[in-house]
Amino acid sequence: MVRALVFDVFGTLVDWRSTIAQAFRKSGLAGDPEQLADAWRERLWPITAEVNQGKRPWGNFDELHLATLEGLLAERQLELPLEVRRQLVAAWHKLDPWPDVRDGLEALRRKRIVAALSNGHVALLIDLARHGDLRFDCLISAEMAQAYKPAPEVYMTAVRLLGMQPAEVMLVAAHPFDLKGARGAGLWTIDRPLEYGPGSPAREDPDADESIGQLHELAARLIE
Amino acid sequence: MVRALVFDVFGTLVDWRSTIAQAFRKSGLAGDPEQLADAWRERLWPITAEVNQGKRPWGNFDELHLATLEGLLAERQLELPLEVRRQLVAAWHKLDPWPDVRDGLEALRRKRIVAALSNGHVALLIDLARHGDLRFDCLISAEMAQAYKPAPEVYMTAVRLLGMQPAEVMLVAAHPFDLKGARGAGLWTIDRPLEYGPGSPAREDPDADESIGQLHELAARLIE
Repeated sequence: MVRALVFDVFGTLVDWRSTIAQAFRKSGLAGDPEQLADAWRERLWPITAEVNQGKRPWGNFDELHLATLEGLLAERQLELPLEVRRQLVAAWHKLDPWPDVRDGLEALRRKRIVAALSNGHVALLIDLARHGDLRFDCLISAEMAQAYKPAPEVYMTAVRLLGMQPAEVMLVAAHPFDLKGARGAGLWTIDRPLEYGPGSPAREDPDADESIGQLHELAARLIE
Repeated sequence: MVRALVFDVFGTLVDWRSTIAQAFRKSGLAGDPEQLADAWRERLWPITAEVNQGKRPWGNFDELHLATLEGLLAERQLELPLEVRRQLVAAWHKLDPWPDVRDGLEALRRKRIVAALSNGHVALLIDLARHGDLRFDCLISAEMAQAYKPAPEVYMTAVRLLGMQPAEVMLVAAHPFDLKGARGAGLWTIDRPLEYGPGSPAREDPDADESIGQLHELAARLIE
């Protein structure tokens, strides 16, 4: 029996790409804003892996986003003043949720405990939840484990803080590597393959226990 | 400038005494239920101090409540079946908030970040927040610091997770020892001297930065 649903945030609940592309547009940087947003985001996984491998000290998403932005700019021989770089990093605190999320989380909260389980740090998650008026029963962050998903200790930290067994917790996420990490820790997994919103590139995670589109579909399926 | 308000929970936001006394009444245990509730609660501080001093391994509130209940029963040469002891421990998960709390937190959330900062473990805080329909921006627990208030690391963990400086955070609490601990860590403090609700024994913390009765008084005082 699943007692808690834990949600990945970036891509799964909030649309990072539109806002970050818009922030690049506003920055005046040369290049296609959507492509810049994608290239910036792609640099996040390698740097979190470096943290997990001990090659890099702990840094929260603001710190990692600044470092990866600087790497992106250096690679393309582009320059931006520090103030504009900071504005781009701050844009990650004001991402809009997908249209189904606010009400979907409310419907799910009536049936289960609902928590965020994100690589984003707590202060960032607070800002995103407030910006989108998203209500969670609690925020659980990789920061609390001082390791990034898909490291098993992140999922185990969530399970421990919820006071549950792994098989009582289900992760909903848009990224197969995250779902795989959760399965490895004994959680149920639900694929939500819409990182880029409706019209996302087709992909599937055949190993996920279920796949959903809209959150209210999931709410309708859960027995009270 | 205060950016976040963090709230002690037991006594400050929820009325533990009425529900725990009622649970004793239901248990059939001999003795005055209110007095039993007070005696049980009094045993909590020494046992959390033992954890902080390393004389006892980490235990969450469910574990500590069970241990202190057993100590109380032994002292009075009383007995209760394990199932009834567990029901008494579980009663701490269903405490009603004081009447001003639900709407007061909502009003405060419109002006500041609002978090719980409690010695209760996360799973217990989730249950209390759901039971009372209390909305926090996040739950911060002593469990995340593996130390109990008033140990400084609990307040510093809150400050770190909020991504703020100590002087940007204000603790609202009903217990002078908690307020003192927070001040020692550099936080602002607000005394809410109503642990037992309206009619609580008069006491004051002259060192607190402010004292409030109802939460909406505080909300009215805060500049946006």
